[in-house]
Amino acid sequence: MADLPTYDDVVAAAERINGHANHTPVITSRTVDEQMGAKVFFKCENFQRMGAFKFRGAFNALSQFTPTQRKAGVVAFSSGNHAQAIALSAKLLGIPATIVMPHDAPAAKLAATKGYGGNVVIYDRYSENREEIGLDLAEKHGFTLIPPYDDRDVLAGQGTAGKELLEEVGPLDALFVCLGGGGLLAGCALSGRTLSPDCKIYGVEPEDGNDGQQSFRSGQIVHIDTPKTIADGAQTQHLGNITFPIIQNNVDDILTATDEELVACMKFFAERMKLVVEPTGCLGFAAARAFGDQLKGQRIGVIVSGGNIDIANFSRLLS
Amino acid sequence: MADLPTYDDVVAAAERINGHANHTPVITSRTVDEQMGAKVFFKCENFQRMGAFKFRGAFNALSQFTPTQRKAGVVAFSSGNHAQAIALSAKLLGIPATIVMPHDAPAAKLAATKGYGGNVVIYDRYSENREEIGLDLAEKHGFTLIPPYDDRDVLAGQGTAGKELLEEVGPLDALFVCLGGGGLLAGCALSGRTLSPDCKIYGVEPEDGNDGQQSFRSGQIVHIDTPKTIADGAQTQHLGNITFPIIQNNVDDILTATDEELVACMKFFAERMKLVVEPTGCLGFAAARAFGDQLKGQRIGVIVSGGNIDIANFSRLLS
Repeated sequence: MADLPTYDDVVAAAERINGHANHTPVITSRTVDEQMGAKVFFKCENFQRMGAFKFRGAFNALSQFTPTQRKAGVVAFSSGNHAQAIALSAKLLGIPATIVMPHDAPAAKLAATKGYGGNVVIYDRYSENREEIGLDLAEKHGFTLIPPYDDRDVLAGQGTAGKELLEEVGPLDALFVCLGGGGLLAGCALSGRTLSPDCKIYGVEPEDGNDGQQSFRSGQIVHIDTPKTIADGAQTQHLGNITFPIIQNNVDDILTATDEELVACMKFFAERMKLVVEPTGCLGFAAARAFGDQLKGQRIGVIVSGGNIDIANFSRLLS
Repeated sequence: MADLPTYDDVVAAAERINGHANHTPVITSRTVDEQMGAKVFFKCENFQRMGAFKFRGAFNALSQFTPTQRKAGVVAFSSGNHAQAIALSAKLLGIPATIVMPHDAPAAKLAATKGYGGNVVIYDRYSENREEIGLDLAEKHGFTLIPPYDDRDVLAGQGTAGKELLEEVGPLDALFVCLGGGGLLAGCALSGRTLSPDCKIYGVEPEDGNDGQQSFRSGQIVHIDTPKTIADGAQTQHLGNITFPIIQNNVDDILTATDEELVACMKFFAERMKLVVEPTGCLGFAAARAFGDQLKGQRIGVIVSGGNIDIANFSRLLS
């Protein structure tokens, strides 16, 4: 386990992305604080470049490419936000990018990835294996594959979101982080353990995609079928070999939220906080709300992971 | 004209609202800057308390009540945001509030006003005169009437939005401000003239409610029928005796935007900037976009006035 990333890697990532990633705002709401009897700090990664925290990890990884790697190009597979993050980071760094995306990726994410100049390869989420496709392309063309979460540079980059939050607001009693493959959760857990050692750290998954919860509680990585949930950023089938041990060692529990709870949060964010948040970005707040009175008097952090959702789909879910 | 408010009144208002109003964030967008070839600063009053800039003026006015006025109470007439602003300010200051609202006010604004403890009196926007109803109630019950815009304390309070923007980002080449009765525009014009003397200041109205443009160009206050537009915060019929001369003396021009342009801006704010903005709040950006290449290389300020819109209506307009 000597090669697992540590908080030092998060600090190094923060230096690399400085001036490229947005230092996103922390937003508070008197309404939320009154409802929960707590002080809640929302780290708004929906205001990150390309609309989600994924830019942090992607830029951190790509900015360390050797000249040979830069020339050959990068390949990535992603349900959406990682795709855009790689495509945008590659564009900024002058690296050719090929992105393997599922056939049912949100149109907005597909369009944005192409808009950043990425070469998109489509696969069937339910019958094909994106990792194999990505590896094949890497081998054939000499691309460097940057996986969406199980990568030390990606993970360290995502951790800068937690670092910025804790440096801005100070120590917290609890931190809620959405969980797909675990890059954001593991990275933020590293930041949390160092900057706020007594803070409870919770990962939050869609109820129908609780592989992380099963893994955390059983002590080994559990694989599940691709879950069907509106939280398209958390439709991962399993945690990673790097993210899992960090989560096991640093996270207090893995919680879940239903699609109905995510929609209720999306409405609340839009109506009361004037924020567009994608379903995956609602996971943390949904779980925090479900705690009810147990968080009274506490200082709570919530990572709002992104805001990339088709406007048509957003309207439909809000109706 | 010796009794017209000046920038000194804006400065005094800023001190009164300090710690009560939100110091709202200024948000920028690389996409907007690239599209316009300019640097655009959005002052996000949709993040203001009760969701719009109106809190600034209302709190500034009510916080100056004498003990007798406080005890008797306040009355206000408003299409929505001023109503909520008065209701919330009154609640915070322990003053009873009566609000005269149109029968077709957005449900969210009506509910919020009642939620803040305001006593709501309904009138028909197209057949009754809200000013007469407000004055009658004031006379009968000893209430102090706080009009939505033609009041020096309200106007001075609204000007703090422009003051904060200019103090944060420095001098601008142009500032776009939405225009209903002129409180926000006149207040921001006072701030603009002092803090950024060379800045062009534009008011922006709905195309079908261009009484301000007609007044500005003819040199006298023009009255129109209540305009039908989705910009419900700018359905005013005329400028005020206080706002008009300040606008005449300090504003460079009055522009207009169509409902279609407002919807396009609303979509852009939601999709690309992850912001919920009400139609009235889109007026400034709509006019700035229509300038096209003329703003190239300039530093532009846009006041995003508010984000209060029924979520059902919001979804419908985005579809």
